[in-house]
Amino acid sequence: MTNKPSLHTSLSPALLNLYDVSNSIVVIIDVLRATSTIATALYNGAKCVIPVDSVTRCMEIGRQIEGITAGERDGQIAEGLEYGNSPFEYPREFIKGKTLVLTTTNGTRLLHMALEKGAKEVVTGSFPNLSAVCDHLQEKNQHVILGCAAWKDRVNIEDMLFAGAVISRIGKQFSINCDSSHIALAMYEKANKDMFAFMKKNEASHYHRLMNFGLEDDIRYCLTADGANVLPRYEDGKLVIN
Amino acid sequence: MTNKPSLHTSLSPALLNLYDVSNSIVVIIDVLRATSTIATALYNGAKCVIPVDSVTRCMEIGRQIEGITAGERDGQIAEGLEYGNSPFEYPREFIKGKTLVLTTTNGTRLLHMALEKGAKEVVTGSFPNLSAVCDHLQEKNQHVILGCAAWKDRVNIEDMLFAGAVISRIGKQFSINCDSSHIALAMYEKANKDMFAFMKKNEASHYHRLMNFGLEDDIRYCLTADGANVLPRYEDGKLVIN
Repeated sequence: MTNKPSLHTSLSPALLNLYDVSNSIVVIIDVLRATSTIATALYNGAKCVIPVDSVTRCMEIGRQIEGITAGERDGQIAEGLEYGNSPFEYPREFIKGKTLVLTTTNGTRLLHMALEKGAKEVVTGSFPNLSAVCDHLQEKNQHVILGCAAWKDRVNIEDMLFAGAVISRIGKQFSINCDSSHIALAMYEKANKDMFAFMKKNEASHYHRLMNFGLEDDIRYCLTADGANVLPRYEDGKLVIN
Repeated sequence: MTNKPSLHTSLSPALLNLYDVSNSIVVIIDVLRATSTIATALYNGAKCVIPVDSVTRCMEIGRQIEGITAGERDGQIAEGLEYGNSPFEYPREFIKGKTLVLTTTNGTRLLHMALEKGAKEVVTGSFPNLSAVCDHLQEKNQHVILGCAAWKDRVNIEDMLFAGAVISRIGKQFSINCDSSHIALAMYEKANKDMFAFMKKNEASHYHRLMNFGLEDDIRYCLTADGANVLPRYEDGKLVIN
């Protein structure tokens, strides 16, 4: 027997209820691009990021707190909002000291699910903050669920790769009786020399979608480790760093 | 645009509702060991296999039709049934001309879900009947859903590997806009030289479970292509071959 804490990977929000959320730290993973953008905005000095699940709610809260409203639908800035989902829209000179109200569909939904199921702690993970996530999980030494936001519940490659990257770095500290985690690790080991090329070769659906919008730089940034190495934690309706 | 039929992989019964089942051939995949045993029994001359979801129902139908009742719970023949889940229990000299009433949890549940959602056709797939499945799908040239039975809704490695094997052989004939399928293919390509070793190395949960019951031979057989190369089709409550 082992005294190590457990680690599980939930490949889709539709699978989250299989795991013991209430006893775990849940890492929300939405690599392209919500959680990468959240890490970036906070790294660049945003006061906090408020994740909301609809454009209407985004506008409403934006007005109430004079925040920056952001979100896309079908690759365009959503009607009524000011900015999009790209991490490059949030450089320090723009976002410092401001509150970003961000509407995303998959990531926000998963985050709210984790909260409803009573997650001990909710943090967000992406390659730009890979080390911060790993350091935190290692230090806490508690049960972990790596929660992939996926795409309308469909499993995606990039969120799985991030789960694999975390497991590759700190998996030995956990007891992992979870095929999804072992699959994620095997995929990451196969991909990690050039994840961009891996996404292309394996026809990742988001790769195609974002390339069609001319967003190659976004993809490359979102697959690169530690460009915005902070740990967003959910606290009272907001994502903040210490 | 393409005129090819689509192919999707559903990694867990909990994800099946994301796909257009009513318009597709659904392949039920439960590699360790339900669908391997079904192919084997039919290959060895069983009249048909009746998949049922509970031990009680298995006993009931077994009595009504004087069939062979089979099924395991926690690695033991379930109380009240006669045989277990191993393909080796069904050699020709025993099973020829008989009806096998088999209770499995994951595979049977998925099969009934596919029927309820109005699948065009339901067949079962496993490595022992890999070629028969591929030939059939290729010939039919219709939309396909590769449905992994998984383990209590948790994604497993071996069912994903079988999906990958099918895609590796006939994927080019289909339009595949499905990350799960691309992941399955990438995993299969990584594993296919020695799938047994891959299962061991990647700590597949069923590998451990069955090894603990002393069932290495079962695992090896269930990971070997074409040992029982027939196509079980679901028809009026039974799985039959032509």
